[in-house]
This record gives sequence, structure tokens and C-alpha cells, in this order.
Amino acid sequence: MTPAENSSRGAPGAFVVVDWGTSSFRGWLMSADGETLAESRGGEGMLHCTGGGAGAGFAPVLRDHLARLGAPEGVPVLICGMAGARQGWAEAPYLKTPTRLDALHEGAIRIDAPGDIRILPGIAQARPERPDVMRGEETQLLGVTEPDFTGLVCIPGTHSKWVRIEAGRIVEFSTYMTGELFSVIAQHSILTHAVEVAGPPPAGSEAFREGLATALAVPTALTASLFRLRAAQLLGFEQRADGAARLSGLLIGTELADAARLHGPFRSVWLIGAGALGRLYEAALTGQGLDVTTVDAEQASRLGLAKAAAKIWGALWEARVTT
Amino acid sequence: MTPAENSSRGAPGAFVVVDWGTSSFRGWLMSADGETLAESRGGEGMLHCTGGGAGAGFAPVLRDHLARLGAPEGVPVLICGMAGARQGWAEAPYLKTPTRLDALHEGAIRIDAPGDIRILPGIAQARPERPDVMRGEETQLLGVTEPDFTGLVCIPGTHSKWVRIEAGRIVEFSTYMTGELFSVIAQHSILTHAVEVAGPPPAGSEAFREGLATALAVPTALTASLFRLRAAQLLGFEQRADGAARLSGLLIGTELADAARLHGPFRSVWLIGAGALGRLYEAALTGQGLDVTTVDAEQASRLGLAKAAAKIWGALWEARVTT
Repeated sequence: MTPAENSSRGAPGAFVVVDWGTSSFRGWLMSADGETLAESRGGEGMLHCTGGGAGAGFAPVLRDHLARLGAPEGVPVLICGMAGARQGWAEAPYLKTPTRLDALHEGAIRIDAPGDIRILPGIAQARPERPDVMRGEETQLLGVTEPDFTGLVCIPGTHSKWVRIEAGRIVEFSTYMTGELFSVIAQHSILTHAVEVAGPPPAGSEAFREGLATALAVPTALTASLFRLRAAQLLGFEQRADGAARLSGLLIGTELADAARLHGPFRSVWLIGAGALGRLYEAALTGQGLDVTTVDAEQASRLGLAKAAAKIWGALWEARVTT
Repeated sequence: MTPAENSSRGAPGAFVVVDWGTSSFRGWLMSADGETLAESRGGEGMLHCTGGGAGAGFAPVLRDHLARLGAPEGVPVLICGMAGARQGWAEAPYLKTPTRLDALHEGAIRIDAPGDIRILPGIAQARPERPDVMRGEETQLLGVTEPDFTGLVCIPGTHSKWVRIEAGRIVEFSTYMTGELFSVIAQHSILTHAVEVAGPPPAGSEAFREGLATALAVPTALTASLFRLRAAQLLGFEQRADGAARLSGLLIGTELADAARLHGPFRSVWLIGAGALGRLYEAALTGQGLDVTTVDAEQASRLGLAKAAAKIWGALWEARVTT
């Protein structure tokens, strides 16, 4: 009995796709027609793999996950994310904007190892006045868009992305350090005294809405508004439990205000979100009167990888079927 | 021979003034007519003193410094700064804006200990929409202003202050987390890879001027501009050595833009600055075509303390002289 025959669906495992981020590994065994047959996830992200020197840990980590997935011997593997960064397994050089999403697979690099293992490229905006990079999000965008898609997509996270796509091409994007600033401010600044952090605050909280409104009204005032969180507490205007929600509202509001300036005006936005943070952005965006279409971030990654894998290996599978 | 007779100037030590901050102690022995007779400084700030429990270490630290100053037994002592915070030696409650600077001494509290030891109050802006606090800067402001002063004062630092004074009264102020954000971003965020920090960058650097210009042109874009520092480096547009100057320019520019919005328009500004950071602000402000009058921060503190001490004990000294 081969591992592929083990699958409950009975379809043969044709390829494996992996979203390999900074701190997480998520892999799926897929059938040739794009069905998900098995899933394997863990904390073996890029940081884990590079612990023993550049590239050292990637091959063994992948081997373990392939075994857990019950993947057939020599299965082709397609990877996206930080594994393709300069400090990752092997560098998959950035494609430059403007670039078609459905041509992502053409930039994939092949790992110098037995089998057929490839890593999708990130995308760079190589403009000196607005340099920017993404690695992983491009695959999510491929996953959720039709080839002729035109629209604006928001991808919240440690480094939130706003991406303008025209007729299937990424034409411009901007990254905001929103999530990372929340963490470093809450953990390492004087605001640790004013903020009680237990994950993202609930989307419906009044403190979040107030922080958001403050930032949207005066988006230049962020660095003053931050100190006011501390002052408000010293003066007895606020509770610690409100601090995190207000901080989150200030940072997300500042992001929204600048995204509107840079990419706007717009009436609808696609949101590739997950969990509590996704719901916060959804509340913020709909609160601004925007039409929001939310899609799940993990599903977007898997779908994008499968689309690119079909472009790379699809012809091969068809050849196998017909001969 | 008494310690006071030791003084090279020959004037008797009449009082001691202390600028007692979060992480530093600076004390001066003064004559009744405001001459500085001796100085003693060290790292025994509030954080050092509260290490063994609230208030525990303040009295011994002061005693040591009084001995080093050669202060006469029972000399009156006036303190400003974080020693008067709730978590300090004893809380000197905030005066509320609008408040006259030359009435600062009326809010001084007296320490429950032998001798006459007092702490000047901080100032609070107890407005729910723009809450703010200062502790220490009010004394510098008293030091550098005439009783009928009208103008705008900038005090750079970990938490930069912009203070609008009308006819000797503080009417409004705003605090920017500029210095602290620089530290936490440079030390704890992804930008540690893009920033080589060795103190504030030189005021004349092109990278500083460019960061400043970027922030002044689009002050809403701070959280995007921060990520662009990292992207610029990944794309080979920038060197690590430029990162700190650019980060500093972005943060100071964002502060200036918001201060101009909140307190402006203005054509001249007083700057209470020190060292390299003071020179950075001076360059930034004069670069904006403003008339800048720079005064030394430490001198401002000492002068403010001496003015307040004269208000508290001056009558006493006059009485002693005339009887």
C-alpha cells in the first residue's frame, strides 16, 4: 500500500505545496485536479531552519513533513514565502512591478537537490522613491484573483500590504509596519504600562473605534497620539484594558488613511485576512463605508500555490494521462 | 573649615537644586544670589532609586550627593523631574494647564524628612481629547523665559515636547514619542537589519535631510516609510550606515509636521536642546526657514530650579541678611 492509496479520497497525490513563512510551515498534499488530500503544519519556519547555518535545516524539515503527508516518493514540491528569501533555503529573485500574477510560476527557482522542488519568487517595487517588497502575499493574490482582476487588496499582518491590481497585473503596492509596531510598542516602550495585551482586541470595542477615528481624523498625529495613551492613563481617563484596543485602532487608522491617500479613492476592497486581526480590519473598512470582500488567508495561499503548480506541472500530468 | 568655605568663589552655599530624572541625577550647590558653587552628577535616577521599593533609595542617594557637593548641614534642597512622579520619591501632583510658569513653586511638595527638601510639580493638560503630561520640562521653561514670554518652545528628547506659552502661561502642549520610537524600532524591529546605530546621526547628513523631507511632504506615511527603509536596503538602494539618519529624519519630520499643524503657523521657535540631538533639531527647524533660538537644556534646568528656589526661600534669605 503506497501512502497515496492511504488517502481517504482515493485520488493519487500528485504534488505538494508549501507556504513556508518566517516562523511557520504549512504543507498540503494535492491531487492533480487540485483537491487537498492531506495537511501538515508546524513551527519550522525560516528562522527555525536557518538556526544551524544558511539552508542547513530546510531539506530535513521538508523530508519530515513529506513523510507526515504520506507523499509519494519523488513528488514535485512547490514552495512560496520566506524560504525563497536571500537568508532562506535558496534565493528566488523578486519579479519587478508591474508584473502579471499568472506569470509568477515563470520566476520559480529549482532547488539543487534530488526530486523537483521549486520556490516561487517574491515581488519587488524597485522604485527609489517607494521601494517595497513582498514574499508570500503574491501567491495569495494569485490564489484569490481571476486572470483579468482589477481592484485593491488589503492583506493585514505584521507587515500589512495594500496592493493595486489592474487587469491581473500588480501595478503598485505599499507595506505598513502596523503589526510589528503594535508588538514593539506594546512590549518595549513606556506604553507597556498603558497596554494590556492578550492578542488583537475585539473588533467591536469602543476603544478600538475611538483610536481608529482619532487616526483617520488626524493621521499626522500618530507619534503624539501614542504618548497620549500613556498620559490618559496617568490622568485617570483610561483603563489598561482599553490601551491595546486604542493602540490597535491608532495604528490601523493611520494605515487606512495613508492607503486611501496613496491608492484611493476606492469604494470596495478585497481583504485577505485571518482570525481576530482579519475581523478588526473588516470592522475598520466596513466602518468607512467600503464594500469589503473577505477571503481566508490560508485558503488563498493554498489556492495560489495550486494554480502555479498546475502551470508548472499541468502539461506533464496531461502528458501522463494521455500516453 | 566648613564645606561652604571650601568654595573657590567664597560665597556661602545657600541651597541645592537637583534635576532628578528617570536615569540621571544632576545636583548643584548654589549661593543665595544664584551662583553655581559646585556640581555633582551620576546615574542614580528614579529607576536606580526605586530598585529596592518605592522611595527607598532617594534619601541615601541625595545624602551622598550633598556630601560630594560639600553642602552645609541642613541646606534647603529643591528638586524637579521624575523624583516627583507617582512612582518616584513622593508625588508632586501636576498643575493643570493653563498655568503660570512663575507660580510653579507654589505647587512644590515638601518631603517628610529632616531638613527642607521640596519637589516641584509637573504639568498636566487634563483634556480628554488631548491628554498630556510633563515633569522636568516645566522647570526648563521657567528657566529660559521672562515672566511675560509668548512663544513656542521645542524640547527634543525621548518624549519631545512642543509647548505654547502666552504671557508667561503654558496654554497648550504636545508630546511626541520620537526618541523612544527611534530606540525601540532600531533595537527591536526588523529595521535593526537596516539601521546601524551609534548615537544620533550628524545633522548635516543627506540621508537625514531626505528622511526629513519625505516625512514633511507626506506625514501620514510614517508606518509605510519605515518599511521602505528595509525594502530600500534589500533592493540595494541604501547602506546600513544611512539607515539611522533616515529613520531619525522620518521621525523628526513627522513630529515637525504635526507640531506645525497643531501649534502653527509660526515663524520662530525656541529650542531647549543638548548635544547631537539638539543639533539635529536645530538643523531641521532652520531648514524649514524658522528663526531658532537655542538654549542649553542643562542650563535651563538649573536656572529654572534657581528661580523657583528664590521664590520659595528668597524672603527667608533677605530676612536673614537684614536682621
